[in-house]
Amino acid sequence: MVTDDVIEELRRIVGSDSVLASYEDLYCYSRDASWYSGMPEVVVRPHSTEEVSKVLKLANSLKIPVVPQGGRTNLTGGAIPIRGGIVIDMTGMNRIIEISKINMICIVEAGVVLGVLEKELAKHGLFWPPDPASTDSATIGGILAEGAGGLRGAKYGTTRDWVLGLEVVLPTGDVINTGSATLKWSTGYDLTRLFIRSEGTLGVITKAILKLRPLPEAIVRMTAFFNRLEDVGVAVGKVWEAGVVPLIMELLDRGAIRSVNSYLNLGLPDVEAMVIIDVDGVKGEVEKQASRVEKILMEAGAFDVKTALTKEEMDKLYLARRSAYPSLFRVFKKTAIPDDTCVPISKLPEALRRAKEISDKWGVYTIFIGHIGDGNMHPVFCVDVADPKEVDKALKCYEEICRMVLSLGGTIAAEHGIGIVKSKLIEEECGGKAMEIMKAIKRVFDPNNIMNPDKWV
Amino acid sequence: MVTDDVIEELRRIVGSDSVLASYEDLYCYSRDASWYSGMPEVVVRPHSTEEVSKVLKLANSLKIPVVPQGGRTNLTGGAIPIRGGIVIDMTGMNRIIEISKINMICIVEAGVVLGVLEKELAKHGLFWPPDPASTDSATIGGILAEGAGGLRGAKYGTTRDWVLGLEVVLPTGDVINTGSATLKWSTGYDLTRLFIRSEGTLGVITKAILKLRPLPEAIVRMTAFFNRLEDVGVAVGKVWEAGVVPLIMELLDRGAIRSVNSYLNLGLPDVEAMVIIDVDGVKGEVEKQASRVEKILMEAGAFDVKTALTKEEMDKLYLARRSAYPSLFRVFKKTAIPDDTCVPISKLPEALRRAKEISDKWGVYTIFIGHIGDGNMHPVFCVDVADPKEVDKALKCYEEICRMVLSLGGTIAAEHGIGIVKSKLIEEECGGKAMEIMKAIKRVFDPNNIMNPDKWV
Repeated sequence: MVTDDVIEELRRIVGSDSVLASYEDLYCYSRDASWYSGMPEVVVRPHSTEEVSKVLKLANSLKIPVVPQGGRTNLTGGAIPIRGGIVIDMTGMNRIIEISKINMICIVEAGVVLGVLEKELAKHGLFWPPDPASTDSATIGGILAEGAGGLRGAKYGTTRDWVLGLEVVLPTGDVINTGSATLKWSTGYDLTRLFIRSEGTLGVITKAILKLRPLPEAIVRMTAFFNRLEDVGVAVGKVWEAGVVPLIMELLDRGAIRSVNSYLNLGLPDVEAMVIIDVDGVKGEVEKQASRVEKILMEAGAFDVKTALTKEEMDKLYLARRSAYPSLFRVFKKTAIPDDTCVPISKLPEALRRAKEISDKWGVYTIFIGHIGDGNMHPVFCVDVADPKEVDKALKCYEEICRMVLSLGGTIAAEHGIGIVKSKLIEEECGGKAMEIMKAIKRVFDPNNIMNPDKWV
Repeated sequence: MVTDDVIEELRRIVGSDSVLASYEDLYCYSRDASWYSGMPEVVVRPHSTEEVSKVLKLANSLKIPVVPQGGRTNLTGGAIPIRGGIVIDMTGMNRIIEISKINMICIVEAGVVLGVLEKELAKHGLFWPPDPASTDSATIGGILAEGAGGLRGAKYGTTRDWVLGLEVVLPTGDVINTGSATLKWSTGYDLTRLFIRSEGTLGVITKAILKLRPLPEAIVRMTAFFNRLEDVGVAVGKVWEAGVVPLIMELLDRGAIRSVNSYLNLGLPDVEAMVIIDVDGVKGEVEKQASRVEKILMEAGAFDVKTALTKEEMDKLYLARRSAYPSLFRVFKKTAIPDDTCVPISKLPEALRRAKEISDKWGVYTIFIGHIGDGNMHPVFCVDVADPKEVDKALKCYEEICRMVLSLGGTIAAEHGIGIVKSKLIEEECGGKAMEIMKAIKRVFDPNNIMNPDKWV
């Protein structure tokens, strides 16, 4: 329970201006980008690792729940304080401490917004490969806590592949540093990657050492158009089989195309499915790679492939993909519930076909988007969340798609994490014994169960 | 204690032929590639996950130490059974279960030798990026348990970046599957990467799902020659600053060059330091990249840069690098004790200079090799292990270099793990609190402390 004494103590730690306790303020922190909500009792906005440490020490001594939040762009309810308590808003700790091209790293505080960091890195000719579609709001801390993926996953993997080390505050208030600012590290257990993907259940990430890459010299962006959704799966497979590693391959089905067209008036063609493909490399070479991909796609069933000729055209396509999810809110005035599964590429045609059949069966209006190049499908269900029946139907559809994906050797959570929505499904994928171990690991870090409690672990 | 009854029971589990208990046999399993040794009481060679499970169940019920071994190429004593007990020789579980180009994965048993896998993958135009220099003997299980790195680390990182999932037998005999055969995964804590780099202290890895890449179309191999060791560090920095991501950058100093020359009669020039550089990509483009690198290296202080013009010449250079460590045994009739530190690239010139000063100070004959492109230095000390004074001196030199590297923000273990040799140094890098957590995690998996006990955790 957060008493007046606790609030007083929190004010002493972070300063009065950085403690929020009015209903209006708390309400802002009760939501993430999912359809769940939960009110915190108090919000603190720390300015330093030391302040985070003091807040956690206090919370731990009184067994008050703590949920760290970043940009609150989470799509599964991971950042929702379902047991009240203290929300730690990390967005005030947003310093970019170091960018080093020679070391190919940057060191940042957890509250840095990825989009801001990307702009700074670009000035040095650098980028950080993970790129969740929420770049403009998501913070590094949140991205790490979720183990987020993004568009460039096909070529670059996900967050865990691009982090060298962390500073973390444990529930006891102890501060530890994991990993190292070096490109190789093998000193003990890999605690870095235990915090990545822990959804705030083990401690609060305060700083991160990120591994960078030089910006590619050139990118060619293409769009391929298909008459059947499952043909997209076939085409993705053909690209990989040809030994091409695309930078991105992004799916928009007819529903998604119509939605972004009405939201942004982009004038995309009204086809069953389109795929945006980027290949990157050096000038001269990348164009050759692009024509090779064009040929593969045409042979694999695309009825047309176009290359974006101008920067404007390229930007328009990227905007289309990034706007697919938010456009649903604007156009349909409904809430979008995105599923987030991943299958081996060879199973993509079947997974796409069956996911469509399942959503048709449940009568849920579903659009299909996804980072299809790495097998990551996002069927998005459009739901009136004020109608419990509609929500119930959508969640049943959601679960059936997850189970279908498991039967194909896939995973129920590719990059959005478990949060609330998948907490009852996780054991079906991981098994009882692995869940026991995860729970025991949670107790090692957080014996009083104060960190984002009563979620999936 | 491994009694006759235990041996009898082990015979029932894996078959009589697969239990070794004679002194001669046990002796073979008492060493890895380090200078440590420790005799097991019995060796079992399981054929299946089920057999591994039964062996562990038995060992756990009787609290008998268990050490899994692969190719025994470990350089720090990680695979040495210092408390006797059972060695599980995994080399009999060496099936390549699946290679899938469309899914860019392979599924293998832990006992597969990497060199064998590489040959099979090449038939499909694929490769697995991690490439420890012990490729021809090291097994996938051992490589994963160590979190090994290798030559291609500059471009591709290390083992942890190229594993999607595992099958692991826990000390209780329970079998768990971690991760997934998909390119993205975010379902719970990242147990996969907790086993990677655990040195056999948490369980036995029996299968792995590895993420692959298409073989590059072309590689250009160059050698750059330097008059001063520390200039190599400067040159590596200039390459990164230019935004080039080299495939490999391998250092051999004068001592290493002389050693491989006398071992293999390669006729390499007798210079202070040489660096072998590979750049990879598509034909036509890669040559341009190579001339760019050549220019950078010459400007950065190399006095000559040569491009290997034939396949034979390329192979000779690779052989030189891979033979540097074994050649020391042959040429000097001494044992080579390799250090394995990594620093941020900007600190390389200072780290190289000071490491040389430290080994001069201790009067230890030291050669310098290393995957210098990622900041990974291997000062190798040539020691008569029969002379305790010489060993003591070398280990003091080893420790002083480790501490110097820590003072530069580096790590004491880049890719060889902790094993025995670094067990007293690990806390200086990770800190007491992180060590407490590692020990508690160890207890979660292995409450009876049977797995590779009394090492660093």
